[in-house]
Amino acid sequence: MSLRAQRGNRMLYRANMLPCDCHAALVMTWKIGNAYTECNHIKNIYLRTMNFSSKLLENAVAEFAKLPGVGQKTALRLVLHLLNQDKQDVERFSTAVTKLRNEIQFCRVCHNISDLPVCEICSSHRRDHGLICVVEDTRDVMAIENTNQFNGVYHVLGGLISPMDGVGPSDLQVDTLIERLKPTDDNEVKEVVFALSATMEGDTTLFYLHKKLKSFNITITTIARGIAFGGELEYVDEITLGRSIATRVPYENSLSK
Amino acid sequence: MSLRAQRGNRMLYRANMLPCDCHAALVMTWKIGNAYTECNHIKNIYLRTMNFSSKLLENAVAEFAKLPGVGQKTALRLVLHLLNQDKQDVERFSTAVTKLRNEIQFCRVCHNISDLPVCEICSSHRRDHGLICVVEDTRDVMAIENTNQFNGVYHVLGGLISPMDGVGPSDLQVDTLIERLKPTDDNEVKEVVFALSATMEGDTTLFYLHKKLKSFNITITTIARGIAFGGELEYVDEITLGRSIATRVPYENSLSK
Repeated sequence: MSLRAQRGNRMLYRANMLPCDCHAALVMTWKIGNAYTECNHIKNIYLRTMNFSSKLLENAVAEFAKLPGVGQKTALRLVLHLLNQDKQDVERFSTAVTKLRNEIQFCRVCHNISDLPVCEICSSHRRDHGLICVVEDTRDVMAIENTNQFNGVYHVLGGLISPMDGVGPSDLQVDTLIERLKPTDDNEVKEVVFALSATMEGDTTLFYLHKKLKSFNITITTIARGIAFGGELEYVDEITLGRSIATRVPYENSLSK
Repeated sequence: MSLRAQRGNRMLYRANMLPCDCHAALVMTWKIGNAYTECNHIKNIYLRTMNFSSKLLENAVAEFAKLPGVGQKTALRLVLHLLNQDKQDVERFSTAVTKLRNEIQFCRVCHNISDLPVCEICSSHRRDHGLICVVEDTRDVMAIENTNQFNGVYHVLGGLISPMDGVGPSDLQVDTLIERLKPTDDNEVKEVVFALSATMEGDTTLFYLHKKLKSFNITITTIARGIAFGGELEYVDEITLGRSIATRVPYENSLSK
């Protein structure tokens, strides 16, 4: 291993990552629980040990194996399943994927995935446009919409600040958020709710945005954190339980309105 | 529920299956361990409760969710991953799938997946064409090729006899196998090895084929069954252990040649 690779690997080790088993210089694996994720290099090594009888099959399996959480064996299973389907079914599958990638639009206002220049939520008059919920991506919008508890509009950042992955504020929809908060004649934003994941990246983003938005005359809130409904105390992790005691609320407030 | 559906469900119950939670008539779920698989109908119900912001996204997720072992949430994760890739990467993905389905060929001789009319194994002169290994599908060919222990040729049935799934002998490559076994001037098959899964379907197919091939003057063998190498006795299931005692072999035979 070269000196540069060694130094790189030492850096990774400090950052709670480890060099991948494939021993390629500067290839990282992440420890998730007790398991290590495989780098694409290892995936390729596995791929090469599989004796495919057809180049077409090998290509299709390699493409599927690039998807997150899909290994060689799963990819082969999926590809053989598609091979058993009718030609028009497979055609529909690949058309749906290509069409999505080529024709997808992002809402001009909230940057959520949309079929129209302005999405249904942003163009709805029933929604409270003075209340903006800031989320990471479209999955969070779907999750919050499913609760039927939020009547405002959204702002999709498109990610979270994560220096480890090289994602900075300029990669996110931060400037457009600030633009939306500037008061105009026909609309004034009164409150911004941050609904970001309770991870290091989420908290970093929250802290950064809070500093940016402080100067506006807007209420800044974040979704409540504490023990989940139906959760038994003995199974709750210490940090959550400790924080939920420290930030206890009057009993009357905890009753649903 | 109609009388016909009730009767159908009663039949399924007897066959160790249960009607699906979606209560659709005659829809089956299989019990695997303690979990039940979901029928496509239930998958659709889940799909309808997800609020997609885009029809294109919904279509792509629905297509991915048709793959075996892929639910709605996984499908959404895979689709959003593809959405973050470059356009040409997504194009390559869908082209690989369509091309595989449209251009794939099956070897004229052994019916394995192949890029040529006759596959590499069948056209090789180094292979022993007097020894045919009968397998279920291309995955089994790959598994046996990886062992480097077999120098004969293959015959891919394309499935196993399974009355429950409506697969009979006529759906498999049985006639072509019998055709191959007929002695010709330039080639004579001496042995047929059955390498089929040790399941009910595998044993049924084995029994059927054995009856069909008895009249030929050919040695019919099946791969050895017993405890796996590296397996500890206390963890081996009773049937395997019992059979491996009943069919014990002389110690000299168990030594690798």
